[in-house]
Amino acid sequence: MVQKRASTIVEVARRSRVSVSSVSRVLSGHPDVSQRMRERVLKASAALEYDPHSIARSLRTGVTHTVGFLVGGISNPVFAEIIKGASDVAHANGYAVMMTNSEGDSAIDAAQLTLLVQRRVDGVIVSTTDEESEIFALDRLEDRIPLVVLDRYLPPDSSVSAVYADHAHGVADATTHLLDNGHRAIALITGSRALRPANERLLGFLRAHEAFRVTPRPDLICMGNLQPEFGRKAASKLLEAASPPTAIIAGGNRLLVGVLESLQARGLRVGDDIALVSCDDVDLNRLYIPPISAVVRDTHRMGQVAMELLLKTLREPTAPSQSITIPTHFVQRRSSELKIDIRPQRGLAQPQI
Amino acid sequence: MVQKRASTIVEVARRSRVSVSSVSRVLSGHPDVSQRMRERVLKASAALEYDPHSIARSLRTGVTHTVGFLVGGISNPVFAEIIKGASDVAHANGYAVMMTNSEGDSAIDAAQLTLLVQRRVDGVIVSTTDEESEIFALDRLEDRIPLVVLDRYLPPDSSVSAVYADHAHGVADATTHLLDNGHRAIALITGSRALRPANERLLGFLRAHEAFRVTPRPDLICMGNLQPEFGRKAASKLLEAASPPTAIIAGGNRLLVGVLESLQARGLRVGDDIALVSCDDVDLNRLYIPPISAVVRDTHRMGQVAMELLLKTLREPTAPSQSITIPTHFVQRRSSELKIDIRPQRGLAQPQI
Repeated sequence: MVQKRASTIVEVARRSRVSVSSVSRVLSGHPDVSQRMRERVLKASAALEYDPHSIARSLRTGVTHTVGFLVGGISNPVFAEIIKGASDVAHANGYAVMMTNSEGDSAIDAAQLTLLVQRRVDGVIVSTTDEESEIFALDRLEDRIPLVVLDRYLPPDSSVSAVYADHAHGVADATTHLLDNGHRAIALITGSRALRPANERLLGFLRAHEAFRVTPRPDLICMGNLQPEFGRKAASKLLEAASPPTAIIAGGNRLLVGVLESLQARGLRVGDDIALVSCDDVDLNRLYIPPISAVVRDTHRMGQVAMELLLKTLREPTAPSQSITIPTHFVQRRSSELKIDIRPQRGLAQPQI
Repeated sequence: MVQKRASTIVEVARRSRVSVSSVSRVLSGHPDVSQRMRERVLKASAALEYDPHSIARSLRTGVTHTVGFLVGGISNPVFAEIIKGASDVAHANGYAVMMTNSEGDSAIDAAQLTLLVQRRVDGVIVSTTDEESEIFALDRLEDRIPLVVLDRYLPPDSSVSAVYADHAHGVADATTHLLDNGHRAIALITGSRALRPANERLLGFLRAHEAFRVTPRPDLICMGNLQPEFGRKAASKLLEAASPPTAIIAGGNRLLVGVLESLQARGLRVGDDIALVSCDDVDLNRLYIPPISAVVRDTHRMGQVAMELLLKTLREPTAPSQSITIPTHFVQRRSSELKIDIRPQRGLAQPQI
């Protein structure tokens, strides 16, 4: 369907440099409008071929030009960038974005999705709290409303489009860097295996060990959830063990907060006493002293691609679903420069051969 | 429009294997309900797409049990806490929350408010980008929909309720602490005077100087906006000046990001080479080495109070508007311990008298 995108009232307001409500008053024939303003608005709306009856039309056609965004946990700073990326694409295409936040409560996930459908959005970008609620919710909704899922596993027969991040690749590079520096006791703290980002991070971690022919210590793999409190508990347990790790990968930017709390409480210096790697390009990683190495992804791009996929589905409802994977890469900073001399360990091991 | 028959409360009760009155209690947000029952009922009602506040009824009563939250800039981490506070109160009262983000674009502010009204929310919590857009929007909307404004100045004749933070008090305490430590060249970097939080921070800064009978240096007061980029530019200009400050107050948690970038680029050590104070209880302040002193407010409480005021307005539309101020307090940490010996300055000054 080739159709020029309809202009919005916001564009008319911007072009005529008056408020949206002034545009509305002019176009509805409100008497209390200056001649000058009236001329400016009419000029702008003519230039933009603005149709004030598009809202009425949207009620008739069932199209609202509004999309929903279900945010799994707004405390995660990467959501701001994802939302901005998605909103940029939405606004450029004349769509508005409404968000709901479930903040780690999967019962709320489901209720919020239902709410968005009732509010008559044209489609929804979904980033749910955990696997279970997502599959459960999709199960009910994917036939009724166009969905794009952000970085979550989908059932094999799903017809939903998705945007993934290639966490495994970046975490494998980070792990290889630590193994190169002589670390043989590397801990991974991340979310549950049911959660795609966490499981992919584990796969990258294992893959790098395998390539090095190093068997990872199972006691150093801590999978729970992505919250700071789990990071703090897992790190504390690791650091208090008889054989603590020489390096930690915090597989989630919120987990890092708890890991740092645990390290600071013990007076351990990042980069000197222990090597540390985290995830995402967040302020805390960049500005910490020393700066913290991280597996980063282009979150703004993730939001853009998710919205592009959703708008494509709206334009071509019968087109097959699509999944797009956004790369990650390892950004090396001072927190992971610590080298471990592995020769003494060989020395100890040799007599036993 | 062909529409599926709406599910009934009896079907939800049957599916969740609880009584009708239990379903009713869960869905009305009654506190005396077990977590397990709550989950079962919410799951069943989501599966059946049961809506206790169904569109049919909402059309009849005009009540949607949904409130809007207009977020001025979702990149600010304090919004997550404010939203959580507001959502907690909303959910406990059987209301859902829909958010829109304007991210610093006041034209979008206005469009988003209009959108929320069109989506037929019962009321809106507003935290706009800047003064101009806020007053403009309120002007049009306050007669049409109940509003609560977060920490923005209102026109004198406004009938809108508001939640304020007492920024002046906390910043005055922070400034006094720096003056006590001998600082006489204290810089304040904050947003525009038109923005309430920024102007209140300036007032606290000036008040503390006045109480000390110290005249603040006008060249050290930098008011622009609350974004990291302004923080970086303002700090860089201050630090390159002939007479740089010995202490900086970053009047806004996003500004701190830019201030730290500027300090780090010059190799200046926080707390040793310069005293630093920021705002809000954010990860970066708590976990930085050294930890950064901050003027903090209970942001979760701000969200709760805002939602309580909004729900009160919905219940009693004729009740007079109300404004509630949330206190701030100064949390002293190592970043501001640097003391300046003021005796040599007196020594220099005396011959001129």
